[in-house]
Amino acid sequence: MQFELTKEFIDKLNLAVSSKNEVAVLELIAELRPVDIAEIINEQNLEEAILFYAFLSEEQAADVLIELDEDVREKFLKSLSSEQIAKQFIDNMDSDDAADLLSELPVEKKIEVISHIENIEQASDIIDLLNYPKDTAGGLMAKELVKVNVNWDIKTCINELRRQSLEIDNVYTVYVIDDNSMLQGIISLKRLFLTPDNNKVRDIYNDKVISVKVSMNDEDVGQIMEKYDLVVVPVVDEIGRLVGRITIDDIVDVIKEEAEKDYQLASGISENVEHSDNIWLQTRARLPWLLVGLMGGIISSKIIGTYEEQIQIHPETAFFIPLIAAMGGNVGVQSSALVVKGLANKSLGLNGSWNKVVKEILTGLTNGLVCSSLIFMYNIFFPHGDTINWSISITVSIALISVIFFAGIFGTIIPLVLHKYKIDPALATGPFITTTNDIFGTFLYFVIGHMLYSIV
Amino acid sequence: MQFELTKEFIDKLNLAVSSKNEVAVLELIAELRPVDIAEIINEQNLEEAILFYAFLSEEQAADVLIELDEDVREKFLKSLSSEQIAKQFIDNMDSDDAADLLSELPVEKKIEVISHIENIEQASDIIDLLNYPKDTAGGLMAKELVKVNVNWDIKTCINELRRQSLEIDNVYTVYVIDDNSMLQGIISLKRLFLTPDNNKVRDIYNDKVISVKVSMNDEDVGQIMEKYDLVVVPVVDEIGRLVGRITIDDIVDVIKEEAEKDYQLASGISENVEHSDNIWLQTRARLPWLLVGLMGGIISSKIIGTYEEQIQIHPETAFFIPLIAAMGGNVGVQSSALVVKGLANKSLGLNGSWNKVVKEILTGLTNGLVCSSLIFMYNIFFPHGDTINWSISITVSIALISVIFFAGIFGTIIPLVLHKYKIDPALATGPFITTTNDIFGTFLYFVIGHMLYSIV
Repeated sequence: MQFELTKEFIDKLNLAVSSKNEVAVLELIAELRPVDIAEIINEQNLEEAILFYAFLSEEQAADVLIELDEDVREKFLKSLSSEQIAKQFIDNMDSDDAADLLSELPVEKKIEVISHIENIEQASDIIDLLNYPKDTAGGLMAKELVKVNVNWDIKTCINELRRQSLEIDNVYTVYVIDDNSMLQGIISLKRLFLTPDNNKVRDIYNDKVISVKVSMNDEDVGQIMEKYDLVVVPVVDEIGRLVGRITIDDIVDVIKEEAEKDYQLASGISENVEHSDNIWLQTRARLPWLLVGLMGGIISSKIIGTYEEQIQIHPETAFFIPLIAAMGGNVGVQSSALVVKGLANKSLGLNGSWNKVVKEILTGLTNGLVCSSLIFMYNIFFPHGDTINWSISITVSIALISVIFFAGIFGTIIPLVLHKYKIDPALATGPFITTTNDIFGTFLYFVIGHMLYSIV
Repeated sequence: MQFELTKEFIDKLNLAVSSKNEVAVLELIAELRPVDIAEIINEQNLEEAILFYAFLSEEQAADVLIELDEDVREKFLKSLSSEQIAKQFIDNMDSDDAADLLSELPVEKKIEVISHIENIEQASDIIDLLNYPKDTAGGLMAKELVKVNVNWDIKTCINELRRQSLEIDNVYTVYVIDDNSMLQGIISLKRLFLTPDNNKVRDIYNDKVISVKVSMNDEDVGQIMEKYDLVVVPVVDEIGRLVGRITIDDIVDVIKEEAEKDYQLASGISENVEHSDNIWLQTRARLPWLLVGLMGGIISSKIIGTYEEQIQIHPETAFFIPLIAAMGGNVGVQSSALVVKGLANKSLGLNGSWNKVVKEILTGLTNGLVCSSLIFMYNIFFPHGDTINWSISITVSIALISVIFFAGIFGTIIPLVLHKYKIDPALATGPFITTTNDIFGTFLYFVIGHMLYSIV
């Protein structure tokens, strides 16, 4: 049932398209959904794509357009006139998709396209939607919805529904409003059809409805829909009038992007960049964190530089610099990732931050003890040279347990503090915490080493 | 409209509960949804929770139970008899929730509870579901669905629908089957109600339906629902008979967990662990990667150990060990994260891996040039000691550009290779790539340094 795009399929299709073999083309794509067809076009060059597009029905063409990669769509739209865009595409789209599409066009072309939309109501819906920032409920919502008045009886409702729902693909819920368009509640299609005709909406609707404000941040909308298992949520304006609805398929992307953003930050990538983006975009997204690492490396070199003499006398001190630095970094990333994850899914609960720090201290001590015992045994049983070097063995073990201990505490506290001051705690993971702990670990290691060597 | 849990609210509620003030309790929770109430109970101790639970209606109680944290639910269920669990909870649950709940119980208690379920059909549905592994379509699906026979007319359908849908909260889609229960297609509620009574299902249903096999992996189900924007997907057995359906709210968690799993692996956490888990679980999830780091550190110490003499003569070589190691790690994590992300959302496209490696080489060269020029200028303008040390300056810059270059290539190739051999490429991110690049970077740095110092 599911479509797997292969090189062979594309070759076969391109052949059928270029030889204008309509029967073959339509047969090849008969079972495909718009998103499958979009995948094909993403892999074609512009000429192939334009030729192929001609075989699609109008509705198919509009659905496919929305699913294309942004850069492919941009190229494609450039090859069309404003009138073509309005008549062939916008007219066949839901208001939210149409607004998204228009928002990608240059300003003059946008205005031209809008002037070519024939359905005045749709044009005004779209202009309305274009006013909302993209990352708000308003920017995500669609205007198409089915609504009934709380004062109507069921018979009126069903007639009204027949009229309204002709234009709407999926009707999940019927919204109930009062005479001033204020959202009153919801009523399920099932309820509506199972209730005798002469009943009033007022008596059977459900007034416990969760709605979101038009200005709400998209990530908050995602959290609400996820928490309350909502498939669709109504959007109201500042005074509570119903203005649109958001469906879960638009929100799944937001939820996923949010989870991926943390991953990206933890990996030291500062912008939303993909492997398909060009080298300049890739460099811009990656260089900032590398510069942070570079700064960290320079600071570490300064710290080590002050112990130049000790390294000359005891070069074995240098051997374990990477070990100490790396372990500090690893522990820090682990701790901060756990806090970031906990903050994101709100699983950290109400009990104060103190608990977390105590637990981190104990986990840090356990991990630190295990690791520093192991490295101690290594240094005793496999010494560098012929004799056991007690000073370096003890230094490395004490430094390691200290670094693991403190790195865990830093990794826990820093994201909590950032969160408190409304800064994205995910910033604290990845290169930032690694670099901090590198520096701190190096410092601690040399301080401890210096003390121990002067005693022993 | 949305509920924000506060310490004050809990105190007020606990006071009302302990003084058995039913009016006050019901007023406090009047506007709350099951998931909100579950949040409250997650924060209460067992006695408070049991007292509070008594105020909930039966249906509310069942809905809340499903939303509780797993450990809270476990404690709570221990305080109940098998009969109570069956009559008070299972009877009010959908089959998928009931099966999830039962799968958490010890074997004997599970059997006891099942024997107390009065509705034979429900009991058999639940036993059926318990047979499927948790991470498959079968383990996620619910048995409750509305289905009609392809040979019926609309009137029969609507009557049947009235009967079937009484037990089902949300009807999204009506499934069409043949006499052998084979899935034929779907029909929307809207379509059904807008078609005249004497028409046949056969003539109006939509036969292009996407379904999933009962044995399909949950992550694959998630990808299909996401790709095709499905709110609900039917589940069929090996020969195509309709056996259940999966709704998007159950899949949102799977999609999110998948995105979070990569984050977790990149952060060096090997098991699904939360900050609320105990120290033993935390240690178990975190120690493995720390041991990998420890091994890496030991190998690095061996490499540096072979250059003992050089360090003694030129201690400044040691200063830049953390810089080189850290930069290699950072670049490696960035590159591998981009590949992992691309593989996960299939945005890497059809064009071969070669493209990616070439692009990575160019990005690596750009980043490497910038960073090594900067560190060269630093070493020239701010030398350690009084005079410019050309040897170390050149060594560090050449080593840095080489490390950034190779780390990027490793970070790109390793996840691609893992993916090819069906190993989770996310394993390659985080500590694994950091450690490899630490070792490699240290090695390269000393090899280059040794060569340069023997020339100059």
